[in-house]
Amino acid sequence: MELSQDIAKYIKSTKYEDLPQDVVSYTKLCILDYFGSAFAGSAKPPVKMIDELVREMGGESQATLITGGETSVANAALVNGAASHIVELDDIHKASIIHAATVVIPAALAIAEWKELSGKDLITAVVVGYEVSYRVGEAVSPSHYYYWHNTATCGTFGSASAVAKLLDLGEEEIIHTLGSAGTQAAGLWEFIEDGAMTKQLHPGKAAMNGVISALLAQKGFTGARKILDGDRGFFKAMSDEFQVEKITKGLGEQFKIIENSYKIHASCRHTHHAMDLMIDYKKESQISSEEIDRITVKTYQVAINITDNDDPNTEYASKFSLQYCTALALINGQGGLDQFNDQALWNDEIRSLMKRVDVQVDPEIDRLYPDKWGAVVEIQLKSGETITKQTDYPKGDPENPVTAVELLDKFMKLSHKLPEDDRELFADKVMALESLENVKDLMKATKTTHVS
Amino acid sequence: MELSQDIAKYIKSTKYEDLPQDVVSYTKLCILDYFGSAFAGSAKPPVKMIDELVREMGGESQATLITGGETSVANAALVNGAASHIVELDDIHKASIIHAATVVIPAALAIAEWKELSGKDLITAVVVGYEVSYRVGEAVSPSHYYYWHNTATCGTFGSASAVAKLLDLGEEEIIHTLGSAGTQAAGLWEFIEDGAMTKQLHPGKAAMNGVISALLAQKGFTGARKILDGDRGFFKAMSDEFQVEKITKGLGEQFKIIENSYKIHASCRHTHHAMDLMIDYKKESQISSEEIDRITVKTYQVAINITDNDDPNTEYASKFSLQYCTALALINGQGGLDQFNDQALWNDEIRSLMKRVDVQVDPEIDRLYPDKWGAVVEIQLKSGETITKQTDYPKGDPENPVTAVELLDKFMKLSHKLPEDDRELFADKVMALESLENVKDLMKATKTTHVS
Repeated sequence: MELSQDIAKYIKSTKYEDLPQDVVSYTKLCILDYFGSAFAGSAKPPVKMIDELVREMGGESQATLITGGETSVANAALVNGAASHIVELDDIHKASIIHAATVVIPAALAIAEWKELSGKDLITAVVVGYEVSYRVGEAVSPSHYYYWHNTATCGTFGSASAVAKLLDLGEEEIIHTLGSAGTQAAGLWEFIEDGAMTKQLHPGKAAMNGVISALLAQKGFTGARKILDGDRGFFKAMSDEFQVEKITKGLGEQFKIIENSYKIHASCRHTHHAMDLMIDYKKESQISSEEIDRITVKTYQVAINITDNDDPNTEYASKFSLQYCTALALINGQGGLDQFNDQALWNDEIRSLMKRVDVQVDPEIDRLYPDKWGAVVEIQLKSGETITKQTDYPKGDPENPVTAVELLDKFMKLSHKLPEDDRELFADKVMALESLENVKDLMKATKTTHVS
Repeated sequence: MELSQDIAKYIKSTKYEDLPQDVVSYTKLCILDYFGSAFAGSAKPPVKMIDELVREMGGESQATLITGGETSVANAALVNGAASHIVELDDIHKASIIHAATVVIPAALAIAEWKELSGKDLITAVVVGYEVSYRVGEAVSPSHYYYWHNTATCGTFGSASAVAKLLDLGEEEIIHTLGSAGTQAAGLWEFIEDGAMTKQLHPGKAAMNGVISALLAQKGFTGARKILDGDRGFFKAMSDEFQVEKITKGLGEQFKIIENSYKIHASCRHTHHAMDLMIDYKKESQISSEEIDRITVKTYQVAINITDNDDPNTEYASKFSLQYCTALALINGQGGLDQFNDQALWNDEIRSLMKRVDVQVDPEIDRLYPDKWGAVVEIQLKSGETITKQTDYPKGDPENPVTAVELLDKFMKLSHKLPEDDRELFADKVMALESLENVKDLMKATKTTHVS
């Protein structure tokens, strides 16, 4: 059988009734977590620019914009995808290095709202979308990730899968959906050098392209049948090494969404190991930055590739500086959304400590990546003492989990611009999603909160 | 100086007044040739599906659809890009292996119409868009072309450049336009295995993504400054080998649009060398297919990669079968749009001769590719005689040119669904484009013809 056909059969045969209870619970938390990030990001400049573009272009009132108002499903996926990635608090999957929420959920929400589908339909589509994203990502990781932003590239297969599920496409149509999705997969890491706004365009476009692919397939539009494993397909073109079996092994039996990691710190996930260790040490010791001579962070190569930046010049870039985040976490004892801003960016104490942070690759930690996103920190005190701390699992990983209560708390903080009552009602709706008859009602609630 | 900055300076400084007269004339022919292909393709099923999607999504009335009516500039670029590639008669540049018209021109037309710019503005933008597309393509050819559909990937830089020119963006904004364009560049050759409709989505999306990139940059949206030559940029991610100097050498002094090749046969350009030779031989000899024992086509590797198909099953796939096209050309003595259809696909005589066509790589011809897209054909007759014919330049290459009269004739044929008077008036308008005050008037003329 063909690989795309395997995936199509999996998507076609997945039913809400067959989902284990923990998968349903986990998926609702993912959706709640998505909304928190999307609300918090909706007024950021790059999102406003994409939003302005979409309003200028116009579109039928099919789906709700997280920024207010309605537009076409393609446009809504674009804006609502861009909005949910920018505060750097959206979920992440270690083995595939993918933020699935920011691509899969906005695409699924737009279609579920437009077609007035149920909460159960939405949950099932999100499960399927995560599964396909993660499996494609695992198949090409880690080589693909050097150049390509997995969230966008592999995520396109996920948003397309979720939409195909919601549209109840047939097996052949799903094969074509994947073909059109894969040939639109794009997103280069080059933006990271300048901290360019491009990063927000990536998930937005991946969500939008998934929507377009499935809607076209529904009309009979054909795509490559072997888009992943073909001679001129995604695997060979966009990765040095790939493992086809990662797509099919256990497909339909496991639910990878429960491997999801949730972010507590508002920075790149590759900075979280060191931040956790700094925060722990601060709690234990109440150390001040003046007492520290040097800090050495030893971690995996990819973290160095993405986050070795000893002089970030924007708030956004600071979230991708391992040196900065390490210093900030030690000084503030926390690394949430409120910790990152222009004032903190130029804070003398953070800047000074940051200069004393060295980052380097540890071969053993690197060997275990991406199964473990680990780090060792060595804190040399001026007193002569050296403290060493280590973690394999940043907070929020399934092995070091956050609780549902912590995630609800995170949601309440991220949506703090909305009235508190609305926030609580909204969270309740998401936590009871399986009894929601019409996703339109959920999306209406995002509007109510905006209006009030 | 940075590479993107070089390109930005070139775009910013190019003025209509500085364009040589032959460049202006050539560009008008490119635009006319674009419209011919777009009219002829506008009712084909894949285009209709994309058109239906766009109408469903809706959009402000900003630009004319070649399929009738108006929509947003992004949507118009998508549909009008898809429409102009499907009859396989759109222009091609040898050294970069790019069909620039189908990506650059729909994007430029949409913006020029929306902003009510002049014919001179349009010509200048198209010159710039072709130049950037071709140079990016040359820089990564031939290695990029194995996996990637240059027209779509490199073309995205071209559509973005043309739109940036029309919007009169500043140097910094153009750098960001290129950044956002390059990170959206996509389009895998895998579709060719099935002759999937994806091929039409590629130029449409490339046109649309160029429009989005420039409009976002105008709003202050930032992209990677080194999208081409950065460590995680387009060149390194998407080609095994690349030549940066192809971008800058002679930039602003040469005008690569005059290196353009026009297509006379309605099939993949990689089949034209053999078709030309077959048509010549048919003219000379009036040979019938029964007299032929075998035909051997020797050509470059890329032609084999793309067009070695001894059993095409759709009209569209037949245009990408070197065996089929060779047989068809010999039997019919021509290979225009009317020659390819379902009846011809299953024609016994063509099918029978096709089985006797061998295709193979010739190392010497391959060495000269892509400067020369050559072929040698050996025709073994049942009589024992063998005829050998050779060409370095398929008809329509600058070295083997078609005349303006032939291109006008081609346009009249391709737009045959429109009333003849309208067609002639429309062609006159394009041929006098430098005196057109408002591109809206040109696009209105496409509507008049549709209505009448």
